[in-house]
Amino acid sequence: MSDRRTAILEAAATVIARRGVRGLRVEELAEEAGVSKALIYYHFEDRTGLLRRTLAFVNNRAERYTAEQAAAGQPAAETPAGPLSRLEQALLLELQDLPHVRENSTAWGELRASAVFDPELRGELALASVIWVREVADQLGEARPTAPESALTASAERLTALLEGLSARWLSGILPLTDARTRMREAIGVEVAHLAGLD
Amino acid sequence: MSDRRTAILEAAATVIARRGVRGLRVEELAEEAGVSKALIYYHFEDRTGLLRRTLAFVNNRAERYTAEQAAAGQPAAETPAGPLSRLEQALLLELQDLPHVRENSTAWGELRASAVFDPELRGELALASVIWVREVADQLGEARPTAPESALTASAERLTALLEGLSARWLSGILPLTDARTRMREAIGVEVAHLAGLD
Repeated sequence: MSDRRTAILEAAATVIARRGVRGLRVEELAEEAGVSKALIYYHFEDRTGLLRRTLAFVNNRAERYTAEQAAAGQPAAETPAGPLSRLEQALLLELQDLPHVRENSTAWGELRASAVFDPELRGELALASVIWVREVADQLGEARPTAPESALTASAERLTALLEGLSARWLSGILPLTDARTRMREAIGVEVAHLAGLD
Repeated sequence: MSDRRTAILEAAATVIARRGVRGLRVEELAEEAGVSKALIYYHFEDRTGLLRRTLAFVNNRAERYTAEQAAAGQPAAETPAGPLSRLEQALLLELQDLPHVRENSTAWGELRASAVFDPELRGELALASVIWVREVADQLGEARPTAPESALTASAERLTALLEGLSARWLSGILPLTDARTRMREAIGVEVAHLAGLD
């Protein structure tokens, strides 16, 4: 991806996290990215094209920092609790009071919320969700190899939807971050115990 | 509440569900409610005042139809599974493809999402959430009377946050309604089994 294109997408995530999708004005975005309005239209055609690419960009960025930080935090020796602590770490990375996590989660939540009113965003959103659920189901499967595939997918759908619900409460200031993290950690334990009972 | 005031709040929920909070124009709202713009400002002072009262209104309306329908669907004779099926029924009522449920859930989701950017909405939102978590915790406590209070509250926080997450996926068209309902029903079972294990 060209540097200019990346700069525009980074700026779009910043502006959306600051003022929401419907607060996104192409003038402000151009200023934030240090490019002309014409260049934005050249790269993204229209507002919807820009929002769709921003959704994919924000999603990829979350995957990247999740993978990087999980790798950095991983213990040198594999322990029996390995797959489970990797899953916990990956899900909890989304609930951190770091500027880039807060910005990314806010922008993601906004783009998700906009898809209710903008069907053109749904393809990207559905794809990102399917991939995320698959990853979490695979990690659950490493922890509980004998659990049925359908049960792993169902647990992964619950854990990812719960994370989105908790993240929205945290970002709107009605649930303290430590509570959101505790609820998430407990939920992983509850789901894994449930999967163990299905063996 | 005066009829005019109620008509304005009903119209605000309709307009927000149609186009989102940031699509809410006072002109359109006045037309939808069949009142003057001046009357809207007379009753609600400003846009934030209107949004705060709409949030409370939408929340009360959800409580009302949940309670009414739960009462209507309740079996005449109390069964051992009583408290649990009442809880299941109450939570699943929010996931129904009926125009008034869809409108109410869409407006609620939008107002919640707006609170990330509008701190003045947080008081109403926090209050509504605390009351809802308390109600679900009480219903879980009827099903599992010996479970510790803190565990009931934690389970209720997870179930309500999960419902918000699943509802957002359903309303944005990326999760079929039947899947959302199945995931929610399973989650209640998983949480109740967890609470039983704490006895």
